[in-house]
Amino acid sequence: MTAATVNDASMRPLVITMGDPAGIGPEIVVKALAQSSHLLGRVVVAGDMATLQRALHLVGLSGDRGLRLVEVDGPDTLVTGGAGVLRVVQACAPFGPVPFGKISGDAGRSAADCIAAAARWTLQGRTSAMVTAPIHKEAFAAAGLAYPGHTEFLQALAAEHLGVTVSNVPVRMMLSAPGLSTVLVSIHVSLQQALAAVTTERVLQTIRITAAHFVRCGMPHARVAVAGLNPHAGEGGLFGREELDVIAPAVRQAQADGLNVSGPHAPDTVFMRTRQGEFDVVVAMYHDQGLIPVKLLGLEHGVNTTLGLPLIRTSPDHGTAFDLAGTGRASPSSMLAAMDAALGMSA
Amino acid sequence: MTAATVNDASMRPLVITMGDPAGIGPEIVVKALAQSSHLLGRVVVAGDMATLQRALHLVGLSGDRGLRLVEVDGPDTLVTGGAGVLRVVQACAPFGPVPFGKISGDAGRSAADCIAAAARWTLQGRTSAMVTAPIHKEAFAAAGLAYPGHTEFLQALAAEHLGVTVSNVPVRMMLSAPGLSTVLVSIHVSLQQALAAVTTERVLQTIRITAAHFVRCGMPHARVAVAGLNPHAGEGGLFGREELDVIAPAVRQAQADGLNVSGPHAPDTVFMRTRQGEFDVVVAMYHDQGLIPVKLLGLEHGVNTTLGLPLIRTSPDHGTAFDLAGTGRASPSSMLAAMDAALGMSA
Repeated sequence: MTAATVNDASMRPLVITMGDPAGIGPEIVVKALAQSSHLLGRVVVAGDMATLQRALHLVGLSGDRGLRLVEVDGPDTLVTGGAGVLRVVQACAPFGPVPFGKISGDAGRSAADCIAAAARWTLQGRTSAMVTAPIHKEAFAAAGLAYPGHTEFLQALAAEHLGVTVSNVPVRMMLSAPGLSTVLVSIHVSLQQALAAVTTERVLQTIRITAAHFVRCGMPHARVAVAGLNPHAGEGGLFGREELDVIAPAVRQAQADGLNVSGPHAPDTVFMRTRQGEFDVVVAMYHDQGLIPVKLLGLEHGVNTTLGLPLIRTSPDHGTAFDLAGTGRASPSSMLAAMDAALGMSA
Repeated sequence: MTAATVNDASMRPLVITMGDPAGIGPEIVVKALAQSSHLLGRVVVAGDMATLQRALHLVGLSGDRGLRLVEVDGPDTLVTGGAGVLRVVQACAPFGPVPFGKISGDAGRSAADCIAAAARWTLQGRTSAMVTAPIHKEAFAAAGLAYPGHTEFLQALAAEHLGVTVSNVPVRMMLSAPGLSTVLVSIHVSLQQALAAVTTERVLQTIRITAAHFVRCGMPHARVAVAGLNPHAGEGGLFGREELDVIAPAVRQAQADGLNVSGPHAPDTVFMRTRQGEFDVVVAMYHDQGLIPVKLLGLEHGVNTTLGLPLIRTSPDHGTAFDLAGTGRASPSSMLAAMDAALGMSA
């Protein structure tokens, strides 16, 4: 064993949450880190030692050529050790490993505790960004938590940290595949409701949140393309007036604010143009407008980023996959992409 | 010069229309055919000799190593000649070449005459399929024609041929890129109007037209995937009820009719799944749902197919590009893809 430090004290680590312990989260976290020595030295996991140890065994990474878990008190604690050391903070009450693929309040509670710890460190600047493994919303409910998912939970934690109400922390979802990122004006509502959500105020807020994210990532002049809503962006009002009456005023206001934004562009070509390098990100008017092209380019490497929070948070673009949990077959590729993305954003 | 016949008498030719003579149509037709000796022997062009001769000179294909235009009386007339012979039927009144990039009634009229001839031959079975180069709708209007585009014109010609009214020839647009084809329930209407067009009757009609097309192409068991309208196909009614109330009944009726159809599927993954080989075609609920993924996969190789007509017709997925006409720089790749697709469908 060499005496190298596992992490570089000059760089704050990324914190990774283990996710629901009954799902694939713990497996894909250790698989991803075993594949990337570059990442391994830059992260700390907020999780449960016993659950992560089980995951290591499961995927055949517990031997000499695998990873060695070292429990640390906090994300700042350095460890001297050899290659293959993964630092873990026991961020929830220790508990026996839960059965795979089963919803339980214990599982939901431990996942939530890890998220809360990771968010706290990141809000305090002790960790540079957080990457979250999937949770199960029914396990959250079984634990008595009122949040349907990560986003709402993080929104509440951020609001508390800032001393404001949740409504003062508007968030948006950004989905990314290799070569294409899109930020959505609305997400899980019917298409009819999504049409109603296309207001000048909401589009402008989405543009501002998007631009602010790229400023934080060191790209103050990121080229933001705003998609239209209708075919051919309405073709001058012929196929709908939302572009003229609602979207264009938001783009003009953002331009007046000095943002590098353009549009509304024809939806059927703006994603292709972005892929070809013309823009850095597309503001999409509704869920499927943005998600169809991103998923087509690579579900396996999809990354979800929550914008609008006073911290950087990415996650893989999939769920707990209870049917696959415990088999060791879950692919870590989306988790790896999420870790790489978080590293890039916080560099 | 060898004495080979230019085309094989056992195979009916494809007919290619030259499109608006002021646009890029004539150029891309000759460029495409110069690149594919396989296609050259299988086609006849419905066009204007002088216009096509100009196009040949323009793109540097008029010499010994280029193409040689041979005027024939009709699509059935064979020619003995050497390599590089392209058969042309003078399908409009001969006229001096029109200026590039200018809208004119002469141009619109000649383009229309070529389309009418090609449609007549194909409806009569003298040609196996037709491939149309782009026309300009304002040139059509300048010629006093009431049709905004190919589709409506062909619908009228087909209705006349069948002795029925135009409303009895419902058509749908299919767009294809390499590995992905999609048929649209509606096209050039606002998204709000597109939502209203998602009726059980219209979705069922789209499924039937789609399935009938694949039967004609020799794929009686083509796997037709029907997309949902809302995010996650409504997630059981949580994000909209159109899947439960409107789309699923159409799918069930089509299944009861013996068609190999499934859905409604989550829109954000059905195109990816089709690309991966799970389905042969996606019925998309609105213009951009289908066109965003198809254009992302390759605008350069996009093919438009009109379904529902009693003939096979494909076209490149672009317009007359008046700004590019006469420069010789227009890419023939989409036209080549359209010719290849028509050949495959009529084989």
